[in-house]
Amino acid sequence: MSLADLTLAEASAAIRDRRVSPVELVEAVLARIDEVEPRLHAYVAVDADRVRAEAAALGQIRGPLHGIPMGLKDLIDVAGTATTASSQVRAGHRAEQDSTVAAQLKAAGAVLLGKTHTHEFAYGLTTPQTHNARNPSRVAGGSSGGSAVAVAAGAATFALGTDTGGSIRVPAALNGVVGLKPTYGLIPRHGVTSLSWSLDHVGPITRTVEDAALVLSVLIGQSFPIGDDLTGLRVGVPGNYYFDHIDPTVEAAVRDAIDRLAELGAELVDVEIPLTRYLQATHWGLMVPEATAYHEQTLRTVPGQYAADVRVLLEAGELMGAGDYLRAQRARTLMRQEWTRLFEEIDVLAAPTVPMTAVPAGQETVTWSDGTVEAVSDAYVRLSAPANITGVPALTLPIGDDLDGMPIGLQLLARPHGEQVLLRTGHALERTRLKVAR
Amino acid sequence: MSLADLTLAEASAAIRDRRVSPVELVEAVLARIDEVEPRLHAYVAVDADRVRAEAAALGQIRGPLHGIPMGLKDLIDVAGTATTASSQVRAGHRAEQDSTVAAQLKAAGAVLLGKTHTHEFAYGLTTPQTHNARNPSRVAGGSSGGSAVAVAAGAATFALGTDTGGSIRVPAALNGVVGLKPTYGLIPRHGVTSLSWSLDHVGPITRTVEDAALVLSVLIGQSFPIGDDLTGLRVGVPGNYYFDHIDPTVEAAVRDAIDRLAELGAELVDVEIPLTRYLQATHWGLMVPEATAYHEQTLRTVPGQYAADVRVLLEAGELMGAGDYLRAQRARTLMRQEWTRLFEEIDVLAAPTVPMTAVPAGQETVTWSDGTVEAVSDAYVRLSAPANITGVPALTLPIGDDLDGMPIGLQLLARPHGEQVLLRTGHALERTRLKVAR
Repeated sequence: MSLADLTLAEASAAIRDRRVSPVELVEAVLARIDEVEPRLHAYVAVDADRVRAEAAALGQIRGPLHGIPMGLKDLIDVAGTATTASSQVRAGHRAEQDSTVAAQLKAAGAVLLGKTHTHEFAYGLTTPQTHNARNPSRVAGGSSGGSAVAVAAGAATFALGTDTGGSIRVPAALNGVVGLKPTYGLIPRHGVTSLSWSLDHVGPITRTVEDAALVLSVLIGQSFPIGDDLTGLRVGVPGNYYFDHIDPTVEAAVRDAIDRLAELGAELVDVEIPLTRYLQATHWGLMVPEATAYHEQTLRTVPGQYAADVRVLLEAGELMGAGDYLRAQRARTLMRQEWTRLFEEIDVLAAPTVPMTAVPAGQETVTWSDGTVEAVSDAYVRLSAPANITGVPALTLPIGDDLDGMPIGLQLLARPHGEQVLLRTGHALERTRLKVAR
Repeated sequence: MSLADLTLAEASAAIRDRRVSPVELVEAVLARIDEVEPRLHAYVAVDADRVRAEAAALGQIRGPLHGIPMGLKDLIDVAGTATTASSQVRAGHRAEQDSTVAAQLKAAGAVLLGKTHTHEFAYGLTTPQTHNARNPSRVAGGSSGGSAVAVAAGAATFALGTDTGGSIRVPAALNGVVGLKPTYGLIPRHGVTSLSWSLDHVGPITRTVEDAALVLSVLIGQSFPIGDDLTGLRVGVPGNYYFDHIDPTVEAAVRDAIDRLAELGAELVDVEIPLTRYLQATHWGLMVPEATAYHEQTLRTVPGQYAADVRVLLEAGELMGAGDYLRAQRARTLMRQEWTRLFEEIDVLAAPTVPMTAVPAGQETVTWSDGTVEAVSDAYVRLSAPANITGVPALTLPIGDDLDGMPIGLQLLARPHGEQVLLRTGHALERTRLKVAR
């Protein structure tokens, strides 16, 4: 096993105990990047010499991220570097300052390998440049596809992504890694290119739940003790929405994972998800005009520099009335109230992250057993967007593979600022899987 | 002097000491209503028999509002009564429940005299039905004109109004009474008809600052000790905006009041009001689409029931793009940041409430000394709207009269939840005036 495959917790312990140096770890990950990048394209660019020099220049051990090589989605500013947002619009860009999160990670001793690919300006559920880490003929998912693929392939020990409708959780699930979209506002977004400011979140993509807790603890300056006893934990099992139009293999794996939560001591509670018929309209009603507002200037000056799919969405936003946006804001307020009530009955909601595993690149629609045809991007965003609208924290972790060997994700959601219970639940479940797997 | 002219504090003390009964107080105010209503039209309706019965039925003294007769702007729901919003649209309306504030006042023993006139749905800076308490040929101001006129004329010991751009402070200033627009969100708006939910506030209109403190203390369950020593208080004096396009008599009175604050121990600090060129567009950009969204249904079903001026505004809102609303929201965010910085330098900002006293009814424009022509309603809202956009608390109190005997108002603003310092400053100033006047 290569050092590139260590979890963050393992790598951190090895560096702390001086069994491995930051330079050795970084070299192993750079070697892996050389090996996999030609077929995966997770990174916009990797300057191996700079990475080596930074690893070599690290002084005293600063904490759990010291010497850990990581990737940042290319919406996150790093001083002196272009934030390309994987877009021609950003040609010649150069960030003047570090984003808050980049500065935090740098101060913690993490070593930036490079910026990872995103769907252009994060406005999509794929990452067209990037290939799935398990099978390059399948989609990576997006928009934080580069980050998820890098972590899944050993090309980064962890990464940061952003999530406006599922852009951390979708690619994490499709590539078999862990993704955390924290509570709205918990992780500072200063210096992070916005897609839709009332829905945007920054969060970690890691190999384990424990690793996600480590990254989060550095970013918010608070530690998360994560035991694995779930006695008395109330886990909500949705009777509607989350299991509608879902692949049977995914459903079976998710229900099996929920049974394992019960075996670990959790009490299962049947719940009804409120106001689901307004979810899609609310998500679009918030995102589309906010995205357009962000791009107002460049949409006029360099419209031809956008990819066609993104430009169409941005131009559509110009036609949207204030009344539509207000209806979406009001619907969100009602949803937040109802979800607050939901989380009085339960501590954690358990659901699929995405309704199907990674589809072949180029597939545009999925046909469900009742004959309904759905756009692949609509299907991928459908189960993750509720946590963006309501702002509740949501975690995805791998719970198994389908018959083609593609990973399946379980999504856990909690009340605002319920990261502790999310991480505890995910960690307990992950340990049962690790016990089986190892 | 009639009991109808007592301040709330005086009336409250008289009832507490059993020198006056609630029935006697209510009778005096009802007599005053009979006397002045034919020329002032402050009330939608007064049911004297019900008022007498309620006053007679009060039991043990419940607190400072016990037995105090008051008016509620007719946007505020009272169970079993129409909330007309002074509009034909509300024909046949009947509120099922009390608004939160009506229930609080009832529980505190206050006696509702009746609902007071507003500009239709509060969408204007006048109250066309109502006449100025000092001079019936002059405008009452609005939209809480009925409430301000009732208090000024002795036809209510206090009243509640609502304020979306100045609708408490403008009529209070024009009629020579005190009006408080508290911090955004401080007083619950449940059961109060909305004009623009991100700008709407409920607040008291009273004869003195001390009375405003009494009403606020009952509504938020917190008392406000209001001494009159201003030593060390930092009072901001605006170098721009608030003294532009203002009547010289109003300016002189306001600057004189500011000098009196300095005599009371305050330190005067010259300040610059930030981002003023965006104030009007931001206020309209927020208010117009929110108002239209609120009236969406009835604008389609009964458009002819709206007065022409209000209908034009509501229909204009249907044409507004989401981008305009978002620009206004973003501008507000920047303004709040800059005003937060402003209130690091000072404790209170002192300014005129309105740039001119009450104009003759029917006058539509005002011409300033540099030849600029301004709509009367634009002029009246201009100096009060900043506190709605930023959400900071603002108090108006009378500081003198112009040569025609029309009252002049001083506006004091403070940082969010700075009601204590506002009330203390206003009370200290008011005492100097009362000492002179009595």
